[in-house]
Amino acid sequence: MTDESTATAFVPGHVTGFFSAHRTDDPATTGSRGGGLTLSDGVRVTVAPAERTRIDLDGRRIEMTPVEHVLDAVGVTARVAIDSDLPVGAGFGVSGAAALGTALASNTVFDGDRSENELVELAHVAEVESGTGLGDVVAQARGGVPIRVEPGAPGHGVLDGVPTSARVEYVTFGELSTAEVIEGDTTRLTEAGERALSELRERPTLPNLIRLSRRFAREAGLLVPEVETAIDSVTDAGGEATMAMLGRSVFALGTGLSEVGYDPNVCETYPSGAHLYR
Amino acid sequence: MTDESTATAFVPGHVTGFFSAHRTDDPATTGSRGGGLTLSDGVRVTVAPAERTRIDLDGRRIEMTPVEHVLDAVGVTARVAIDSDLPVGAGFGVSGAAALGTALASNTVFDGDRSENELVELAHVAEVESGTGLGDVVAQARGGVPIRVEPGAPGHGVLDGVPTSARVEYVTFGELSTAEVIEGDTTRLTEAGERALSELRERPTLPNLIRLSRRFAREAGLLVPEVETAIDSVTDAGGEATMAMLGRSVFALGTGLSEVGYDPNVCETYPSGAHLYR
Repeated sequence: MTDESTATAFVPGHVTGFFSAHRTDDPATTGSRGGGLTLSDGVRVTVAPAERTRIDLDGRRIEMTPVEHVLDAVGVTARVAIDSDLPVGAGFGVSGAAALGTALASNTVFDGDRSENELVELAHVAEVESGTGLGDVVAQARGGVPIRVEPGAPGHGVLDGVPTSARVEYVTFGELSTAEVIEGDTTRLTEAGERALSELRERPTLPNLIRLSRRFAREAGLLVPEVETAIDSVTDAGGEATMAMLGRSVFALGTGLSEVGYDPNVCETYPSGAHLYR
Repeated sequence: MTDESTATAFVPGHVTGFFSAHRTDDPATTGSRGGGLTLSDGVRVTVAPAERTRIDLDGRRIEMTPVEHVLDAVGVTARVAIDSDLPVGAGFGVSGAAALGTALASNTVFDGDRSENELVELAHVAEVESGTGLGDVVAQARGGVPIRVEPGAPGHGVLDGVPTSARVEYVTFGELSTAEVIEGDTTRLTEAGERALSELRERPTLPNLIRLSRRFAREAGLLVPEVETAIDSVTDAGGEATMAMLGRSVFALGTGLSEVGYDPNVCETYPSGAHLYR
């Protein structure tokens, strides 16, 4: 292997509609249950060997704890270039995507011999230990419209999916701290999330997922004003929209947001989990 | 819903490199362990409601038992149009793909409320009961380069994957009866398959998967002359090739077959599992 060798992975974005938080002493069994959508808008992560670790997001140097955790776990230093279609901190799973993409690409560049499940576990643990998320990584490794039936990394967590494919629109009004919410008192949130999950499993369709997510956002007390206004506009016009957990963002099915005057980003549900480019 | 409504699913092809067969009294827990590749060449399945079931493959009416099983399990009659990039009976998992595509598309057309895992189980059971395969359906639902760690449908089976992406070439010399092999004495085959699996899990890389598959083909006594000749040509030239289980077909990484004078079909590993089109 030469210093010129690089590898690039794509990881889809992931918006969670509802969730419940489950903490244990072990980050691999810690995680969340819930439902969400993976998105064709996502993150490309390119890894190249380097004397010292340096992480760039869209060409600007940043600190990104979950990515550093992944490199430490692999035992390497590298230059990591993250190119994101999605805003950071707005509920699209960019930190999980960066961690998972780094795991996949660095395994290739450094001739690693981890399996996909092992790389997903590594990224999940990095995300949990950094306090940046509980369920994005396993969802992004799966693709589609993931239902997180049991929390945790592969071997512990259990995933299912809603069989569907849809156009998705989204708008964002800014950040919301994931750590503040998931490290606070999550009792009410988790009760609401568990109820939504059991109803989604009864009828795993996309409109049902969005409706249950909307109810969850209200019950968990997470709605912020701009988000509530946008959701109400879409639903008043007969569309389906809800809030991205955890961000000041709204996503809608079909043309839900554009029909009521927003200028949304447009993408689709993404059928595939994270993958390397060849 | 009107009679005009249709839905279409894409299911990637799947070549198994090595496997072991595991039978129980329950088709959901029956299956295979092993390793293989899903392919960007695959099968599109379109389902439309119809008074009587009719199944067409590439425009010609056929009987396809696993597809009929799926429709029976859903409790519907339908017109099923299967459009395949791949030959039938040659080890590319076309029957599994047809069953899985029918499950996904009919759930959409008939407003079903099954989850993806439930639809995969339905197609897996249909395939096992028809004797046409043991592990293609779960691999095709996953995508990538699946390692079947434990046999059976979701909830029973366990999957992992080789983190990679590759160009794949393949040639086929004709059919081989899956039923004859998997319903015969599989003791030797299963011993060889279990050994290959444990070595692949030690080092889950693509060249290792191909090498272990080649050893498996010899040990299990499944090589036929044209297949052996093609594999030897590729490996003599420094390439990696092996036999598709179960068919008179050879697949190679990169330009393995074209470099030694074959005129292969060319595709790629497919990052995604089976999915609906929107």
